[in-house]
Amino acid sequence: MKSDYIRPLDIRHGSVDLSHGGGGRAMVQLIADVFARAFDNQWLRQRDDAAVLPAPGPGEQLVMATDAHVVSPLFFPGGDIGSLSVHGTVNDVAVMGARPLYLAASFILEEGFALADLQRIVTSMAVAAREAGVPVVTGDTKVVEKGKGDGVFITTTGLGALPEGRRLSGAHARPGDAVIVSGTLGDHGMAIMAHRESLAFESEIRSDTAALHGLAARAMEAAPGLRLLRDPTRGGLAATLNEIAHQSGVGIVLDEAAIPVARPVAAACEFLGLDPLYIANEGKLVAVCPAEEAESLLSALRAHPLGAHAARVGEVIADGHRFVQMRTLLGGRRMVDWLAGEQLPRIC
Amino acid sequence: MKSDYIRPLDIRHGSVDLSHGGGGRAMVQLIADVFARAFDNQWLRQRDDAAVLPAPGPGEQLVMATDAHVVSPLFFPGGDIGSLSVHGTVNDVAVMGARPLYLAASFILEEGFALADLQRIVTSMAVAAREAGVPVVTGDTKVVEKGKGDGVFITTTGLGALPEGRRLSGAHARPGDAVIVSGTLGDHGMAIMAHRESLAFESEIRSDTAALHGLAARAMEAAPGLRLLRDPTRGGLAATLNEIAHQSGVGIVLDEAAIPVARPVAAACEFLGLDPLYIANEGKLVAVCPAEEAESLLSALRAHPLGAHAARVGEVIADGHRFVQMRTLLGGRRMVDWLAGEQLPRIC
Repeated sequence: MKSDYIRPLDIRHGSVDLSHGGGGRAMVQLIADVFARAFDNQWLRQRDDAAVLPAPGPGEQLVMATDAHVVSPLFFPGGDIGSLSVHGTVNDVAVMGARPLYLAASFILEEGFALADLQRIVTSMAVAAREAGVPVVTGDTKVVEKGKGDGVFITTTGLGALPEGRRLSGAHARPGDAVIVSGTLGDHGMAIMAHRESLAFESEIRSDTAALHGLAARAMEAAPGLRLLRDPTRGGLAATLNEIAHQSGVGIVLDEAAIPVARPVAAACEFLGLDPLYIANEGKLVAVCPAEEAESLLSALRAHPLGAHAARVGEVIADGHRFVQMRTLLGGRRMVDWLAGEQLPRIC
Repeated sequence: MKSDYIRPLDIRHGSVDLSHGGGGRAMVQLIADVFARAFDNQWLRQRDDAAVLPAPGPGEQLVMATDAHVVSPLFFPGGDIGSLSVHGTVNDVAVMGARPLYLAASFILEEGFALADLQRIVTSMAVAAREAGVPVVTGDTKVVEKGKGDGVFITTTGLGALPEGRRLSGAHARPGDAVIVSGTLGDHGMAIMAHRESLAFESEIRSDTAALHGLAARAMEAAPGLRLLRDPTRGGLAATLNEIAHQSGVGIVLDEAAIPVARPVAAACEFLGLDPLYIANEGKLVAVCPAEEAESLLSALRAHPLGAHAARVGEVIADGHRFVQMRTLLGGRRMVDWLAGEQLPRIC
């Protein structure tokens, strides 16, 4: 019977096979039963090859960001690849100062991946998108043979609207500016690492994965002269600050005593010989603002649940070498260079 | 020395390692030497986490499409995963009637993948984007361990501008409408298949991969009442027409004698026992228009280099069962159902 061609999948016991990416009936079933059901919204219901969407208002520019997510393991304390793939891209849009509007999602599934795990991930993604107020408006699914992928990879692309004239950029830091972080460093990367290595610390370390556009909006209100926002993901605060130093042609000096690190993360870092400055965050902002706006910005961040542990951690200086340095607890200075190699693979 | 931190990669002999996805110096090098160099444009040069872009003009809507590309092999006669990943997404935007504006690209690389192959693919992508006039404005790179990917997967997301009031949709076909294809069917899928299986036919079969927004614009001019455009990729013409029948609540009757198939593709299909109706195309449009506009549309398509073999292949009928059928060469009728399983995995 053609009229009932969308039969329910056996989500409890079934797994992905190559037909789910083939463009035929099985793919239509998977999309209807798993994706369309979880993400349901007026744009997805258009069911065409692309979504037709209202453009931003007059006087607004577009912001576009894309991120592939390959985190391993797929599920970890505090989140999973689904919520992470929403937060990561929402945050890339938000740090430009833009209001996130829409997400597109593409899935690369490995043959044999449990449909129950896929549904759990898609549900988590849908919840994260709804909480962030950013609908998944279009998507795509491909399937690769067993051994040619790793469960699921998710690429999300975000669109946002940015008022004309507002421009935050990694190139805007100036000597004398304050460097502020919105909370403790290293939570996400260390949660993945501890979970991957089955390390048991006194208390579970949870990923900080969260959508930061609300916090970013507060920051922009509180510091009208805000130079830039960044989310210090792969490579941690060290990579983010080196990028900023390079883009802006400045130096940055951090104050080790001021850098917030949660006690279990600090303990785990010490145990594993890792430096929290290099560890990924998925729910933290780095802000650079004129020194005279630093207190106002700090207060605004601390008044928001995602910014309770915000701290002023350093300052921008004139430095033709574009060095990032740290005043250590012992009173010396050390370089905070880029990481040359790979500290934690597949962290996001 | 920090100031020369971007040293050239050994693209000729090197390969991707996990550090190229780590957020540190190696990743910055890869992005600068391979991606930024090939795609260079004013948006990418912003070098922030997202691109800031002019919004469409007043009276225009946005169109957003995303597609993961996992084609195997990566290189095939007529194209490669790079050009395909540009054309596929440009076409998803174009079939909505929109003018493609921007592309975002995300790469999932497998550890050990030859940098020379990566550069060849990225160069092909850059050429395709330039020819299409659609810049790659932002991107992302991740690396997975050897055996957890397959060389490279590329997800592209496209944005386009659609005039208010124009709406092409798979839900708009009406009984009496003409069904038109812009050229021969099955070229892409059969090129992949023949190459994969090392089949040698009398003449090489080449993929038809091409950007179709120019052809789509001609179609819209020539047939102001145009109901819809589609690009019949995975699942071929059969899947596309079944989708349209389902979305529009109509039946479709094809005329086997009218369906254009290139001779080597027909021969290969016969040899392999495949049906060209189910084989993917990457450079063809399906159009549905009012019968009285069919001749004008056909003439316009045939006047364009990508539409030389355009043909009217069927008509839309009233049918509560939403069947797609074909009048065969022998005068009978047969069902053209969805494919139940997978005919050709990883075709795009």
